[in-house]
Amino acid sequence: MTAVPHRPPIAVTMGDPAGVGPEVVARAWMARREHSLPPFVAIGDAAAIAAVWDGPVARVGDMAEVVAAFAEALPVWHLEDSGALTPGEPTAAGATCALHALETGIGLTRTPAASALVTGPVSKHALQSIGYTHPGQTEFIAERCGVTATNAVMMLAGPALRVVPLTVHIPLAEVPERLTSDLIVAKARIVARGLKRDFGIAHPRLAIAGVNPHAGESGRLGDEETRIIVPALAALAEDGLAIDGPLAADALFAPGIRDRYDALLCAYHDQALAPFKALHFHDGVNLTLGLPIVRTSPDHGTAFNIAGTGQADPGPTIAAIAMAARMAAMREAGCAAAK
Amino acid sequence: MTAVPHRPPIAVTMGDPAGVGPEVVARAWMARREHSLPPFVAIGDAAAIAAVWDGPVARVGDMAEVVAAFAEALPVWHLEDSGALTPGEPTAAGATCALHALETGIGLTRTPAASALVTGPVSKHALQSIGYTHPGQTEFIAERCGVTATNAVMMLAGPALRVVPLTVHIPLAEVPERLTSDLIVAKARIVARGLKRDFGIAHPRLAIAGVNPHAGESGRLGDEETRIIVPALAALAEDGLAIDGPLAADALFAPGIRDRYDALLCAYHDQALAPFKALHFHDGVNLTLGLPIVRTSPDHGTAFNIAGTGQADPGPTIAAIAMAARMAAMREAGCAAAK
Repeated sequence: MTAVPHRPPIAVTMGDPAGVGPEVVARAWMARREHSLPPFVAIGDAAAIAAVWDGPVARVGDMAEVVAAFAEALPVWHLEDSGALTPGEPTAAGATCALHALETGIGLTRTPAASALVTGPVSKHALQSIGYTHPGQTEFIAERCGVTATNAVMMLAGPALRVVPLTVHIPLAEVPERLTSDLIVAKARIVARGLKRDFGIAHPRLAIAGVNPHAGESGRLGDEETRIIVPALAALAEDGLAIDGPLAADALFAPGIRDRYDALLCAYHDQALAPFKALHFHDGVNLTLGLPIVRTSPDHGTAFNIAGTGQADPGPTIAAIAMAARMAAMREAGCAAAK
Repeated sequence: MTAVPHRPPIAVTMGDPAGVGPEVVARAWMARREHSLPPFVAIGDAAAIAAVWDGPVARVGDMAEVVAAFAEALPVWHLEDSGALTPGEPTAAGATCALHALETGIGLTRTPAASALVTGPVSKHALQSIGYTHPGQTEFIAERCGVTATNAVMMLAGPALRVVPLTVHIPLAEVPERLTSDLIVAKARIVARGLKRDFGIAHPRLAIAGVNPHAGESGRLGDEETRIIVPALAALAEDGLAIDGPLAADALFAPGIRDRYDALLCAYHDQALAPFKALHFHDGVNLTLGLPIVRTSPDHGTAFNIAGTGQADPGPTIAAIAMAARMAAMREAGCAAAK
């Protein structure tokens, strides 16, 4: 499904102006017809685009201008001059601009002006240098949307599979204590609701991986499965939520198994992301379920080492914009049907 | 490279007679010409083959007969009647036959009679019921070869990548304490030697994944990288062994990164096997480095649920036999060159 003309544009933040964000959003615009991308606007420092791309740019100040300009030029919502710009060399002014772009993008998407938010890659290190204390962009977006961080659920989605890491940026040693039955139940419910609302899947089929090798082999290789996961599945079954598991993580990712499910819930970061990136390095989308807005992002970082060299792959940004458009359309169709 | 005619046959154990082992070895024989497989012999209960396959069988009693028979019939080295056979229903007599097949296969491969050992899938549960106490077949093979279990290193190999789990069948919670610098150094050396001897890679390029998400982010998400992995890499560098890391496990499996290395060393089972099986479910080979013999196996279990139905994929067994043949040829060529 491609976007219908009347839907508001998508807000795309450039991310750190010294990273690959500006160039990949410009190159996504170049691929707009090939991928049937709906109108979007790049938010940040216009100079960051100019530093790495010499295509047509239209500076805009409202979303009607975005729609009018999109066919012939990349619409850019210029926020501020982020100072002397060298691709690959992050600065405090650049981090400030990235943060303002994020604030602006969230604000636009919280109103009817924008239909979805796509966030470009930021430097956590540069943001910390200006006093930013959130672990990533997702927690900041959740806070601005009035959602607790634990209810903003990260999903990685690509053509072959969708994965959800139930715990994310914590040491591996803390996984057994941080993965609780309550956490599994809460996140599984958010995932099921998100698959219905944003992906139009009436009866989502979920699976959950075990914590231990071979899902613990009935307790011989660890007890987290019987102690934490099984009780959570019992509670979810009472809700009528279909979820299989705990399954051996390696078998779960095999083609004939993963294809049976709409999303795979994983106990920890690498259990989800290592197989996901093995399959979807070029077209993986990071999205957030549980928010009042649609939010996606390309599944890569600032890649300072190749910024400005033209090597950055715009594929993930194209996939993130296309997926945001589909999710926004699905959510809108669901809202219309509910009225 | 395919096998040259004079090399001794490959010993293939059928594994549990009630599992998919007998049928996949028979179907591998049917694909012998298409895949240029060298002569091999199926070791176990001839009735287990007859129960699931009606192709030509030649009962053999020595390896010269295997070579003579191979073009026209599947050579079978019949060990013993394992009793009433129902595919999918393991028995104590079947486990005993599987164990005897393993003993016979090891024995043949320890002599010049067989050039390599390929082991079919066994049931750990059925083997335990007859008093077998080894965690898997690998530990048994190591013991029979006079190698300590920790020096028999599991590698999973496929066309796109090779992975080594540095810790294997232990609870996830024990990974931080069981992964030591000494273990990493010992296994990395065995992997490097194996890649030279059995794969003909003169200067193996290795990478090691971090334990924690993003390889610990310089200690912010765990200290196993700085405390355990970095000292091990320093020791290996003194040996002149090239190994990069610790790298973020998810990035490591991305195509542009994994392609730079001959093998990826992973901290634990699922970090290695989940991405491996996502990519190589149909052609993954499990092999053991550090042994005096060449040993491979198809990377799947007994699959009792589909045994006898004809659904089992012979692809992994074909890949295991072909890889064993290449490894045996490479090892022989290296020995000849050293003389």
